[in-house]
Amino acid sequence: MLRIDIISGVPSLLESPLSNSIVGRAREKGIVDIHIHDLRNYSEDKHRKIDDYPYGGGAGMVLSIQPIFSCIEKLKNERTYDDIIFTAPDGKKYEQSDANQLSVCKNLMILCGHYKGVDHRVREAVITKEYSIGDYVLSGGEIPALVITDSIVRILPGALGDSESALTDSFQESLLSAPVYTRPAIYKGMKVPEVLTSGNHKKVEAWRKEKAIQRTKQFRPDLFKKFQKESKA
Amino acid sequence: MLRIDIISGVPSLLESPLSNSIVGRAREKGIVDIHIHDLRNYSEDKHRKIDDYPYGGGAGMVLSIQPIFSCIEKLKNERTYDDIIFTAPDGKKYEQSDANQLSVCKNLMILCGHYKGVDHRVREAVITKEYSIGDYVLSGGEIPALVITDSIVRILPGALGDSESALTDSFQESLLSAPVYTRPAIYKGMKVPEVLTSGNHKKVEAWRKEKAIQRTKQFRPDLFKKFQKESKA
Repeated sequence: MLRIDIISGVPSLLESPLSNSIVGRAREKGIVDIHIHDLRNYSEDKHRKIDDYPYGGGAGMVLSIQPIFSCIEKLKNERTYDDIIFTAPDGKKYEQSDANQLSVCKNLMILCGHYKGVDHRVREAVITKEYSIGDYVLSGGEIPALVITDSIVRILPGALGDSESALTDSFQESLLSAPVYTRPAIYKGMKVPEVLTSGNHKKVEAWRKEKAIQRTKQFRPDLFKKFQKESKA
Repeated sequence: MLRIDIISGVPSLLESPLSNSIVGRAREKGIVDIHIHDLRNYSEDKHRKIDDYPYGGGAGMVLSIQPIFSCIEKLKNERTYDDIIFTAPDGKKYEQSDANQLSVCKNLMILCGHYKGVDHRVREAVITKEYSIGDYVLSGGEIPALVITDSIVRILPGALGDSESALTDSFQESLLSAPVYTRPAIYKGMKVPEVLTSGNHKKVEAWRKEKAIQRTKQFRPDLFKKFQKESKA
């Protein structure tokens, strides 16, 4: 079973998203083992301080090296980790292929940063993978840790009710998904495309493929190029 | 004051991230007004169902049009919304500039989708902005809604303790941040760069600029090009 250890200075942020819905159920079903570690419990400071002012001045606080090292060392003594992940704007762009790769690991650690950053020595000495979830700034690494955890857990075997489901996601073959519709067929005058209610599965499949290509071309020309390359290969 | 209405079928996911840390404090301080709406409360189905099987078959459930329309119409009757946002893989890439723009709005609505999608008629008829937070699949739109909310709230005046702080973030001038360090100056033999403890502010600034440019060039050549363009302009 995949184990994920998440280290955070604000663990309360992680509670409800990791205890409900798909991730919550996956934990209950024993599909994933998630442990949240409060950085304050590892601080040697008498006030359990975990951050301090940046050397050289400037705004914002920086996560200190000591509590992080103490926590990571304790965990590393207990088991071997495939990766120790940190999320940062200068990390590699996190993509579906990364989620796929991480989902076959045994033990993962995710360190949540303060938005202003962690002492850079942490990144140089213990972090093995740095990801950026997008070109925007967040108040901490907790939401990025949720993104990574959720993207991994939902593709673990058994996590989704219907195992076929994850395979038809956007990105699994460099194409966006086709539009989806459900009942009623007419709502306030707005109709569902007729082909979808025709019962003709071949036509439905052809329509979906066409729409997927059309939408990818229109909204994500970069992905479409990747799709063309893969189709040729 | 900015008001954000978030509509979700799994509102429990949103609780702790919106009640703690920077966003939680911003709500307490009256800097932002966030309302979470449980989609089930708007369902006309006797079992409060909010999703159904996709027309044309296939895996996964699709959010139905009726509860979403009923909820959005009720809110629109109460006030005027600058934007009704939906997050989807085929949306525009969400970036810091979008957060900056949204942060000056008065009323925003964010609809959280199921990962398999919402009835496409919703997107055509009521959504005004579609964003993608990255090229990965998540189990729902709740984490993307957290990303958008957090990125907006933290740049609202007064949300961060130190008002200067947000201005030195990564991306605010198309450059990544320089590495940061804090005490102790030596930890397990690892030293902080000397210039940062020199007390020479000019040298510190020059070092930071140099490192920011160096890191951007190395890790994000795409951003660096943007920076060069902006510097010339």
